[in-house]
Amino acid sequence: MRIINDPIYGLVKIPTETIFELIEHPFFQRLRRIRQLGMTHLVYPGAHHTRFHHAIGAMYLMGEAIEVLRSKGHAITNEEAEAVTMAILLHDIGHGPFSHALEDSIASGIRHEELSELFMDRLNRDFSGKLSMAIQLFRNNYPKKFLHQLVSSQLDMDRLDYLNRDSFFTGVSEGVISSDRIIMMLDVVQDELAIEAKGIYSIEKFIVSRRLMYWQVYLHKTVVSAECLLINILRRAKELSKNGVDLFGTPALKKFLSAGFTKKDFLNDESLLNTFAELDDSDITSSVKVWSKHEDKILQELCRRMISRKLFKIILQNEEITPGLLHDLQAKIKTSLKIKDEEMNYFLLTGKLVNNAYSTRHDKINIVFKDGSVKDISEATDTLNIKALSEPVEKFYVCFPKMD
Amino acid sequence: MRIINDPIYGLVKIPTETIFELIEHPFFQRLRRIRQLGMTHLVYPGAHHTRFHHAIGAMYLMGEAIEVLRSKGHAITNEEAEAVTMAILLHDIGHGPFSHALEDSIASGIRHEELSELFMDRLNRDFSGKLSMAIQLFRNNYPKKFLHQLVSSQLDMDRLDYLNRDSFFTGVSEGVISSDRIIMMLDVVQDELAIEAKGIYSIEKFIVSRRLMYWQVYLHKTVVSAECLLINILRRAKELSKNGVDLFGTPALKKFLSAGFTKKDFLNDESLLNTFAELDDSDITSSVKVWSKHEDKILQELCRRMISRKLFKIILQNEEITPGLLHDLQAKIKTSLKIKDEEMNYFLLTGKLVNNAYSTRHDKINIVFKDGSVKDISEATDTLNIKALSEPVEKFYVCFPKMD
Amino acid sequence: MRIINDPIYGLVKIPTETIFELIEHPFFQRLRRIRQLGMTHLVYPGAHHTRFHHAIGAMYLMGEAIEVLRSKGHAITNEEAEAVTMAILLHDIGHGPFSHALEDSIASGIRHEELSELFMDRLNRDFSGKLSMAIQLFRNNYPKKFLHQLVSSQLDMDRLDYLNRDSFFTGVSEGVISSDRIIMMLDVVQDELAIEAKGIYSIEKFIVSRRLMYWQVYLHKTVVSAECLLINILRRAKELSKNGVDLFGTPALKKFLSAGFTKKDFLNDESLLNTFAELDDSDITSSVKVWSKHEDKILQELCRRMISRKLFKIILQNEEITPGLLHDLQAKIKTSLKIKDEEMNYFLLTGKLVNNAYSTRHDKINIVFKDGSVKDISEATDTLNIKALSEPVEKFYVCFPKMD
Amino acid sequence: MRIINDPIYGLVKIPTETIFELIEHPFFQRLRRIRQLGMTHLVYPGAHHTRFHHAIGAMYLMGEAIEVLRSKGHAITNEEAEAVTMAILLHDIGHGPFSHALEDSIASGIRHEELSELFMDRLNRDFSGKLSMAIQLFRNNYPKKFLHQLVSSQLDMDRLDYLNRDSFFTGVSEGVISSDRIIMMLDVVQDELAIEAKGIYSIEKFIVSRRLMYWQVYLHKTVVSAECLLINILRRAKELSKNGVDLFGTPALKKFLSAGFTKKDFLNDESLLNTFAELDDSDITSSVKVWSKHEDKILQELCRRMISRKLFKIILQNEEITPGLLHDLQAKIKTSLKIKDEEMNYFLLTGKLVNNAYSTRHDKINIVFKDGSVKDISEATDTLNIKALSEPVEKFYVCFPKMD
Repeated sequence: MRIINDPIYGLVKIPTETIFELIEHPFFQRLRRIRQLGMTHLVYPGAHHTRFHHAIGAMYLMGEAIEVLRSKGHAITNEEAEAVTMAILLHDIGHGPFSHALEDSIASGIRHEELSELFMDRLNRDFSGKLSMAIQLFRNNYPKKFLHQLVSSQLDMDRLDYLNRDSFFTGVSEGVISSDRIIMMLDVVQDELAIEAKGIYSIEKFIVSRRLMYWQVYLHKTVVSAECLLINILRRAKELSKNGVDLFGTPALKKFLSAGFTKKDFLNDESLLNTFAELDDSDITSSVKVWSKHEDKILQELCRRMISRKLFKIILQNEEITPGLLHDLQAKIKTSLKIKDEEMNYFLLTGKLVNNAYSTRHDKINIVFKDGSVKDISEATDTLNIKALSEPVEKFYVCFPKMD
Repeated sequence: MRIINDPIYGLVKIPTETIFELIEHPFFQRLRRIRQLGMTHLVYPGAHHTRFHHAIGAMYLMGEAIEVLRSKGHAITNEEAEAVTMAILLHDIGHGPFSHALEDSIASGIRHEELSELFMDRLNRDFSGKLSMAIQLFRNNYPKKFLHQLVSSQLDMDRLDYLNRDSFFTGVSEGVISSDRIIMMLDVVQDELAIEAKGIYSIEKFIVSRRLMYWQVYLHKTVVSAECLLINILRRAKELSKNGVDLFGTPALKKFLSAGFTKKDFLNDESLLNTFAELDDSDITSSVKVWSKHEDKILQELCRRMISRKLFKIILQNEEITPGLLHDLQAKIKTSLKIKDEEMNYFLLTGKLVNNAYSTRHDKINIVFKDGSVKDISEATDTLNIKALSEPVEKFYVCFPKMD
Repeated sequence: MRIINDPIYGLVKIPTETIFELIEHPFFQRLRRIRQLGMTHLVYPGAHHTRFHHAIGAMYLMGEAIEVLRSKGHAITNEEAEAVTMAILLHDIGHGPFSHALEDSIASGIRHEELSELFMDRLNRDFSGKLSMAIQLFRNNYPKKFLHQLVSSQLDMDRLDYLNRDSFFTGVSEGVISSDRIIMMLDVVQDELAIEAKGIYSIEKFIVSRRLMYWQVYLHKTVVSAECLLINILRRAKELSKNGVDLFGTPALKKFLSAGFTKKDFLNDESLLNTFAELDDSDITSSVKVWSKHEDKILQELCRRMISRKLFKIILQNEEITPGLLHDLQAKIKTSLKIKDEEMNYFLLTGKLVNNAYSTRHDKINIVFKDGSVKDISEATDTLNIKALSEPVEKFYVCFPKMD
Repeated sequence: MRIINDPIYGLVKIPTETIFELIEHPFFQRLRRIRQLGMTHLVYPGAHHTRFHHAIGAMYLMGEAIEVLRSKGHAITNEEAEAVTMAILLHDIGHGPFSHALEDSIASGIRHEELSELFMDRLNRDFSGKLSMAIQLFRNNYPKKFLHQLVSSQLDMDRLDYLNRDSFFTGVSEGVISSDRIIMMLDVVQDELAIEAKGIYSIEKFIVSRRLMYWQVYLHKTVVSAECLLINILRRAKELSKNGVDLFGTPALKKFLSAGFTKKDFLNDESLLNTFAELDDSDITSSVKVWSKHEDKILQELCRRMISRKLFKIILQNEEITPGLLHDLQAKIKTSLKIKDEEMNYFLLTGKLVNNAYSTRHDKINIVFKDGSVKDISEATDTLNIKALSEPVEKFYVCFPKMD
């Protein structure tokens, strides 16, 4: 399997033997069982693509980017090329199943970025140090900064791939970006990635596509509602577990339900990472089905809704949810579902979504002009457009069961 | 959700309220958790599309076919249109997870076609008889035979959709067929579906695409090898269960591991169908992971291989596997794995694959000429091509662990 | 040929018999010989698609729009449906070959919109008045205003088709818009077209795509340069003709070179429209080739450059071209080409390009919200984005021969 | 313009400076004005793509093939790579406008293959011998035979490109082949191109696609009818010219109408090739329009039909046209059109079409197996399929004006 079929890029070659072995490693193979977009398939039924496939796609784009940059005279050694490819392959290795839900519930003591680093260090040991440069690059400790930017920046191969891939599998064709054209425009100026001036409109379009994908897919209200439900299911399961209630689950899931592990725990007990690596979407899905018959009425109700896709109603608006509305909803829910006050937060959830398509605060997209000068794109385009896009947009939501 | 996003056909409308309710039914929603192509994603990582999505796609094509046939003057009442759409939606409702593996192991007492009929009857009861005509059509008991052929024949909407869909998600673009062109050529002659003569080359191409998809995807040797492994895992798990060994699993999976239910059992105990309906891919996947640490060495070994994608080697050839080769392999396996004779069949598997792209024996593809005459396509094309394709092709395989 | 193959939309049906006859009419068939994008194929070699093909595509989208609007309860009679379809088919019937070049040179006395109306009136006579409602619609004299907007507005079928089509044939895939999604969101409020609120991001993307296509294709600097060259060729040819120099050309081209006809001339002499209808791209192309050997040095030089694609160099910038730069260029050209002062404007051209992606001044894109309220999109989106886009962008250019 | 936008392959790079100059040469630029598929756009309105674009596409595929073959260990020097790329770029340089029509009428004394060689030799002189190896390769005089096969054989880059390109622009999506997959399977055995055994089904599909494109596009009956009409127009124009009738036309066209030049004439008079190089589609199209008003009734009638797309009716059948049918048609035509006997062959044409999808007689497609053995594909596939396809198929036609 040195060539992988990708419906998006065609036949993708695995560039080196070490990278092939890395892909073969169980830590990487587990990504085959973790969907990139969690519950999104409940809205877009094609969205079953996995983190494995995304990582392979980003690897492919990295190869293209390396070729373009080399052709423009920027030195990238073979060792660096392999390292930056490994870095992009592993950039999301720390994700567990239904990542957001997990981070907000059973694995709330550690962030996926920390887990990624733990995985990388462990893999580096398994590979006798062959990943050292990749890790340096990933942590931005390597002299050539632009290589890090290929892995993590406004225009990294991660984003270029996931926008294309998520568009492809959801069928939201408007999210498709011209990754080949953007990569063709890549350049390096003063050790920073930049885009040739004639690529400005492609970048503008890329930012708008990203924005569209946010509202149409990533923050789609039904997807948000489904994630709220899952978060609450896992919160309830964790609470019950802590109180000694025995719940069905794989040993790995039970371990993570029973305690709140922190980064320290992972460092103290190496086997914990292995246990984490056993988790995937199937642990959650199979348990939710079994829990839908559990005697705990709350757990049962939440799980039953998930399995049969009777999701919570969601109100998503530009203004904050008013206390008055919340109060009304609480009263209705209480009457209708006959629940206790302390159980209310399993049935009434509020939150805030932020769509930050392009932020000048964090890092920027540099445009390089024919005369060699460099400007941030929000200064370079012919209108205020990008500047306008760089304002973060907030929306507020409240989720609750439909009542009649 | 009256409109479903399909990366293949775009925005798919759900035609009627009853069909919407049918799709909402838990029996149908469970198809969201069952992959169309089982283990194929181990070879084609995009192939995670579900039976749910395929059924929706076939529903869409049925709508197109109805419109074309009506425009050519063939009467199809609204009631018939709804019925034939329901029939195609439900044509595969009886499939369980990893269908082949299941039928060859834990659910070996009943075929999926029988399960489909049980599901339909139950749904018909739930829908107060609204599915009666759909069931008649499905069973070919309805007067207008061509409606049944839209659901099940050489050119049914099932095939037109799955070839397109499997090509799309695997990235084997050569399998893509021109479903819109084929549907545009559909006609009815003497109550049988037929294709207008000018569509002959499209049909020829359709048959060759199907043949190609068989060898490139459905019977791909690595896919076959993965399925053999899964069948053996489930066979071993069932054997252990019957001998009283307690294995991890959801209650539904444990029930099916513990006994060999037949159609009669399903008829005697209605709840058995509900239990079957609880099964999906996650039951199998989560268990295989847990079993990979089971103390039974055989189960452990087989599951470990599946999880880390260390599949069996497979030899696939036109000739039967010779007793000599089998003998040699047995000897090597015995030495290498130190297993008992009666355990040999968990590590050495043989079988036969048949690729029957177009069979004149079962039913035919009628071509209708401008003068109204009708011929079978294998008589109508200008060469022996189709006739040649109508010979079934057999290949033989043997699977075994790689040994050095 | 009641079905037309379109690489973009698939099989396009011609909806009625009268429309079929209209397409068969020589006035419409001539559009087969006029490219949609003039000289653009010199930059994007796939851009040979014709005005005929575009009109057919717009007709297809009109059919989709009618279906959507009817499904939302807006009455459109069959007669109106045919009329609005005819109107879109004929919206560009007045275009001649290389439209811009022609309007700026040999047919400078009449605008293509006026010619379109002349053609429509003539066709209406040929079709015994069957086009009357279409013409009313086209001129916005029909009571239902939204029908006119389907033919001519910010979201008319003309734009939806040409953005898709020009993207497809140029290969600038970033210009692709989701015409099916936009059409699905169409609605009518108070007799005006509107877009459902959930379609806002699709519209935003549509406007950005249009903007991108302007700079990347329609106003691409090499395309602008090629058009300047052609305009000058025709200007020179016209000047020579007027001075009695005999130039090669079809009789129709010679007639238009010999005089500057105005709308009045067309009204006085009916045969003039027939002569105009004889012109197409081949008249220009064949003549330019012959003229490249003409004894007039200027005509020869300009034509030679066009044929061998030695286009003028072009400077395109945000600021006006300074008199200083012009002066320098004039001096260099004079020395290098040895031309007279009065011939300078054949070799040094300046101009201004305007990209007005979305203008609130002319007409607007209405967004209709769930509560029935309507806002202009520039008020409705969550940022200043659209407002920013609605500022017209100007660029200035100067064209001249490359000199060393 | 070192990068060319191709809607099919994306951004195509021009590999070397010399190749860039070759593309810039007027002999090559003229291919921008010659359509690949002649009159086919009358049936498939998107089919306006040019021989220029096809040559660029074939150049792109050649680059891919070189990379694959090198990666499999087959030595190709940079010089050879440039030469084989030049050879494919120039393989069709000898085509004139509406090639078939031309060869059968005004340029009937010389074949386009001979013209290609004349152009290559002339270009080689202009390029000071830099094309010598390319010409050797083209003529199969170079030691490494497989390089010639990349330019001309059953699997040459010419076919791979034109099938894809013609499918794309006509919209006959069924003709699309998997050129990337086929190229990925290319290998060289004993200095001959071969396909790896696992690519057999792709090749089978390629042959069937080609066959389909023949009947659906290249030999489409309306296309055949349009070509017959054009051939007759040119025959009549030539006859009139020879008889001293002055016909409108560019000087180049008039020269070729006035005499029947042979290869010898081209060798004796170098300027004749330059004159030939001035011809393109616009010469023919513009003249046909003018001739549609010529006083010669036959020329007028034929041209009028072409311009307004009133093509001849065509009967296309498997059996030879019977003398009886011909006799009847002659009688009817004579009565209806009132023409003389000697003019009959302008209105009644017969001919034979041959679709030879894969011929074992000429050259073969070699399949190379894992054990290194090589077989012709018609021996290697699992059925008689390919053998069946290798029988040439003949059809017979007769064209004549529709009479009522």
